[in-house]
Order: sequence, then structure tokens, then C-alpha cells
Amino acid sequence: MSNSLKKQIGIIGGGQLGKMLFEAGSPLNINYAFIEKKEDCPASLVCSNQIVGDLKDAKAIASLSQQVDVLSYEIEHINVSKLLELEASGKEIIPSPKVLQIIQDKGVQKEFYANNKLSTLPYTLASADELANAVREWPDDTFVLKHRKGGYDGKGVQVLTKNEFAQLARSNDSSLNSEDGYVIEKFLGKVTEVSVIVAVGDGEINTYEPCEMVFDPRSNLMDYLIAPANLSNEVIAACKSLSTSVVSKFDSKGLFAVELFVDQSNQVFINEIAPRPHNSGHHTIESTYTSQYEQLNRILLGMPLGSTKLLCTAATANIVGAEDVNGSYYLDGLNECLKMEGVYIHMYGKQTSSPFRKLGHFTVLGEDRNDVDEKMKAVKALLRIKSA
Amino acid sequence: MSNSLKKQIGIIGGGQLGKMLFEAGSPLNINYAFIEKKEDCPASLVCSNQIVGDLKDAKAIASLSQQVDVLSYEIEHINVSKLLELEASGKEIIPSPKVLQIIQDKGVQKEFYANNKLSTLPYTLASADELANAVREWPDDTFVLKHRKGGYDGKGVQVLTKNEFAQLARSNDSSLNSEDGYVIEKFLGKVTEVSVIVAVGDGEINTYEPCEMVFDPRSNLMDYLIAPANLSNEVIAACKSLSTSVVSKFDSKGLFAVELFVDQSNQVFINEIAPRPHNSGHHTIESTYTSQYEQLNRILLGMPLGSTKLLCTAATANIVGAEDVNGSYYLDGLNECLKMEGVYIHMYGKQTSSPFRKLGHFTVLGEDRNDVDEKMKAVKALLRIKSA
Repeated sequence: MSNSLKKQIGIIGGGQLGKMLFEAGSPLNINYAFIEKKEDCPASLVCSNQIVGDLKDAKAIASLSQQVDVLSYEIEHINVSKLLELEASGKEIIPSPKVLQIIQDKGVQKEFYANNKLSTLPYTLASADELANAVREWPDDTFVLKHRKGGYDGKGVQVLTKNEFAQLARSNDSSLNSEDGYVIEKFLGKVTEVSVIVAVGDGEINTYEPCEMVFDPRSNLMDYLIAPANLSNEVIAACKSLSTSVVSKFDSKGLFAVELFVDQSNQVFINEIAPRPHNSGHHTIESTYTSQYEQLNRILLGMPLGSTKLLCTAATANIVGAEDVNGSYYLDGLNECLKMEGVYIHMYGKQTSSPFRKLGHFTVLGEDRNDVDEKMKAVKALLRIKSA
Repeated sequence: MSNSLKKQIGIIGGGQLGKMLFEAGSPLNINYAFIEKKEDCPASLVCSNQIVGDLKDAKAIASLSQQVDVLSYEIEHINVSKLLELEASGKEIIPSPKVLQIIQDKGVQKEFYANNKLSTLPYTLASADELANAVREWPDDTFVLKHRKGGYDGKGVQVLTKNEFAQLARSNDSSLNSEDGYVIEKFLGKVTEVSVIVAVGDGEINTYEPCEMVFDPRSNLMDYLIAPANLSNEVIAACKSLSTSVVSKFDSKGLFAVELFVDQSNQVFINEIAPRPHNSGHHTIESTYTSQYEQLNRILLGMPLGSTKLLCTAATANIVGAEDVNGSYYLDGLNECLKMEGVYIHMYGKQTSSPFRKLGHFTVLGEDRNDVDEKMKAVKALLRIKSA
């Protein structure tokens, strides 16, 4: 095969993002190796070349690094100092671990946006000791309190009033004792949450169509992700432009998901960034010429970027463990869903279910937003995780 | 997982069709096992569950059968009597090996069409001894001579004049001594060659859009396959209807490629049938909601058929070994092709190249026939198999 296909890719992490990355590389027989602690992880279903080890284990990372031509990762909470050392010694790591240094700490991330004059919501930083005072001085009664480190999928993020904060403080709530410190951030209330996947290749950069998070009006929980976003062309252009600007400042190749807030006056703010494939890009497997996974493969192998054009309206939702299922499970309603046109089901091959565990996702394609909305409702009503 | 996903599928054959079938099953983590002689075959790249053995080896087939819930095959030249025995003992085999019995012998195949009053070109059957006489009595000067058995990819098929035949006979040409006998068939001259993929599931049947073979006017060799075919709606309906009729007569679940001739007065004739995924359906991986491979997976697992709607114009061509390359190789021009929108490259992971060996294929998607035609030309001009 050509030079680029001879390269071997090493991935730190063996979850579903790794699995889908490897699936996207199969038509070109791309070579992979990966690290993951659990031998029956999702990626192991499609790649036998696993180093069994912790994602923070410097030895395992060094061993992976020796075996491969280029390193990447599918999760942020890994051993950054080891990666910085490898990069300094000349190893190609995409995205650069310097990006992880910025992203792993929400305080550093906010400072990075501010220093680069990139639109982000007003904030202040505080240690656990400084927190009470910082809250007192915060101009609004309601605010967002974020742990600087370790937050994931909404964990470590709270919307609080000053009163609620005072109650937590009085009860010595453990959430207020983080050694890593806090970000206090402006609470916007009604916003549209948008995500833009940005691909940075060899001297080229492109973006996917912004994807919008749709919330269930009853539960106020995220219901599904839909592209294109229901925003004017001007606002969409602003989302793409801000995402491109921030990612350019990283000065690193890679695939990035830029999460944005659009407020009611259509101002756009960076919320946070994931330096890897993202839930909001799952739909690209079926809805674009080049999926986010194929795009990352291209970037890692030094190939040209592919077209990110969105071919139809598309939406994705997670398939999560039912509240009453612990252990082995099956997906009920699958056949009914497969009868519907443009419904794609991806299961991650996880052996057991627990309440709300991400077990898979599905994507629906349709003519327009209404069509996709109806299919989404229909699939949601049919699919159930049940005890096997 | 649900009952249907617990089933294991066994495939006889481990070539590129197996590889693409397994790739299509990856999002649902479908379980496979397969038989193939060569350990470094294409399917081995995506499935480690291989029985190393000859496709005609009854023992290997029995061993595969014991391991799996349902058997299928990706090539016709296998051990049919063993499969008939297994089917008689209650094993689910899709398509039924009774279909293979008909298809493996072009004489039996023609008789099957004639007996079922299905449109096919006039023909006569002859043993090697009867051949000279049968040719003498054939009404036209030009005719098609086919070996009843063992022909594959155009091998064992000749267009001859009576004079050319007499010359071959005088020189005792070995092509006229087949023990299995011959089919003499009417030669149509200018025809459109069309293929229709037909899917037969549990009580349901559907067809893909007819795909047309485009020939190079200079070499008269097949240049590429394009869908939709450049035929009127009436003729397309006739192609689908004839294909559905013939496949229904098999009385078997499965995925079938029905090759048709359309003559200059728009009459449609069955040429031959492959009881498996087919080159003319490669493009469905990218151009339809449900690829021919996903469709076969659904059929094998007893799931409902998926939509076969064609989403855009699509064409496929093989990537074959260059005449001057024997041994290891690489694909030159890959990066240039990846820059083009809607170009998909599939390599089969074969270790070595030889002249005209099928090493992969590519599919181009486009707005219309012109667009696809231009992309096809561009990719063909760029991609080259070169010695590594």
C-alpha cells in the first residue's frame, strides 16, 4: 500500500470512539494498536492489537508509542506528562498533548480563550478556600459552578443560586472541597447549545455543519442532537468562524468538537472543547461524505481532508441503560426500528448494562427537521434495554 | 443483545465479499465464523474466527456448521452436496443449496428459466461430442459458446462465428473438450447489460435500482457499473419485475444478483444469477440506506429488510493489478483521489498483486450521470497499482 497506509496508528483508550474509528479505517485496512484496561472493551471487538493497561500508565504508553508511527487518544483523562515527554522526543502525537494541558483544566481553558480574545462567557477562578468569597462578589444571583478538573459528561457542573451555594457550604458539601479549584461562570438561562466539529489536517482546516442539542421541555435533559442547527445563516457562519478561530490557536493537527452557546441575541460563546471525535458527530457516519472518524484517520495518516458537506437532516441519540437493568441485557424493539427508512443503530458491544450507561447510539436521516423529529420520537418509543 | 443478534453466522469463503459483509455487521457486533484456505485472506482482516480449509472440504464445512446458527457463502464453487446434506438434516442455509445446484451448471440454469417460462435468450445444450453438430444446426452464424460449469468472471464464455469454431475444432482446441458440456446461446450484438440485486427476507422481497454496465468503446471491456441505469421507467420496471419473478421461483431466502440483457427493442432477458453480494452492488455501501451487505446480514439473522432506495447517482469500478506488477504493491494516487468529494476507496487487503487481479474497488457518488462520469474518469486516471 501507499506510504501513508503503511503507518500504524496508536490510540490511547479503547471505548466506542476507538471502535468507530477502527471501523472507519477498515475499507483501507488501516493498522491500529490501542491501550485499554478492560480486555472486553468496545474497541477490542474490531482490533486485536491491544495493550492491556491503564490509560495513565506511562509504561503502557511508552510501549504503544514504540509500536506505532503516530499516537492519538479518544479520551481526555490520560497521562499528559508522558505524552509531552514523548512529543518532545520527536513522536508525532495528534492532537498535541499541549492541547490536552489546556483542556484538562477548565480554568486554564477559560484563560486560554480570554488571552486569545475569543468569545467566552464571563468567569472567575477560585480555589476551594477562595470560593465563598468569590461567590459573594459574583454580580448575578444565579451562576454556574464548575470543578476545574475531572468533570465529565455534565459531572462537576452545577447551576446554583447564592442561597443554594450557602446551604451547600453550611453542610460542608464535599463538592466544594476540590483541590483543583473552581470556575464560576455566568449563567445564561435560555440558550441554544451547538457543537461544531473542526478538522485540522496538513495545512488545511474545515468544519462540519453545526449540530444543535435539543432538550426535552419536560425533563430539561438533552433529548437528541440534530444537524443542521435551527439558526440563521449568519449565526451558523459565526459559529463556524469562532470554532475555526479557537482551534487554529491550538496550532495542532487533530479533530476537535467545539461546544458553543448561542444566546437570545444571537451572540456566540465558546463553552468547551473536546480534542477528539464527539457524540455530536456520530451522525456524520451516515450523513456526510466523510465521517468524523474517517476524517480523523485521514489526519492521523497525513492524508487530505475529506468533504464535510451534510447530505440531509440527521439526528443522533444515545442508547442508555434502563433504570431497572443491571447486568446482561438485550436491545428490545430493534426489528421494528430496522423497518424504518434511514435508521442506523450502533451498539458498542458492552457486556453489561447499568442505569444510564451509554450502550450505543442511533442516527436517523430524513428530508427535513419534522421528518427527523418524528422518526426520532418513533425510535425512542420502540428501543428499550431489557434484562437478558 | 436481542435474540437475532445472538445468532452466529457462518460464511463459506473469506474473500472481499466476506470482508465487506463483516464490516457491515460491525455496528451491531454481529458474530461470524468463516472457512478459507489462505490465512491472510481479506475476511481474516476483520474476523479472527477462521476455519482454515478448502471450500469444498466436507469436514471443514461440517465443523463450521456445528459452530454457527446459519450458513451462507460468498462464492458459488463450493461443496453443494455437503450443503444439501446439512440442509436436509435441518441446518438453516441461505440461500438454499438447491439454488446453487441450479446455478452451478449453466445448462441447468437455462433449463430452469425455460421451464419457468422466464425470458431468457434462445439456447441449446450439447456435450463435447455433440458440439460440432449443434453448431452446424444453430441458425445464426455468430453465437455464444459457454462451458456449463466452472466459468467465472467471463472465463469459459466465447463469442464465435461458425468459421472461428471450425478453426478451433480443427486445431483440437482444449476449450472444446469439456466433460461438463456446453450451452450455445443466441448472440445479441448491441445490448445493455443490467444487474438487479434482489433481497428475499422472511416473507418479503425487494429490489435495488438496476445497475448498468458501461463499456469502454475502444477496448469493449467493462469500464464501470452505474446506477441508476440509463433506461426508461418502463424498461426499469420490466427489469425489476423479471428479476423478482425469477428469484421468487427459487423459493429461498437470500440476496441475489440477477444479470440481464436489454436488447435494442427494449426486450429484457435473464443472463445469469449470482446467489450472493455482487460487484454491481458495491456502490450500495455508500449510495443507499441499506447496503447489499447489511441487507444480507438482516436476511441471515431473520431481521426485516431495509430500504433499498438509491440516494444519488453512483458508480463503481474495480481496482485491478497493473500488467507490470507482480508481488507487493501500493496504491499510487490515493491522496489525490481522497481530495475529491464523494469518492470511496475499498482495498481488499490482498498481500500481492498480479496482472488484472481484483485488489479493491472504488465508488463515486454524484449529482447526475455526467458528474459521476467525470469523477470516474478522474479517479481512473489517478489510481495506479505500483510495485512496492
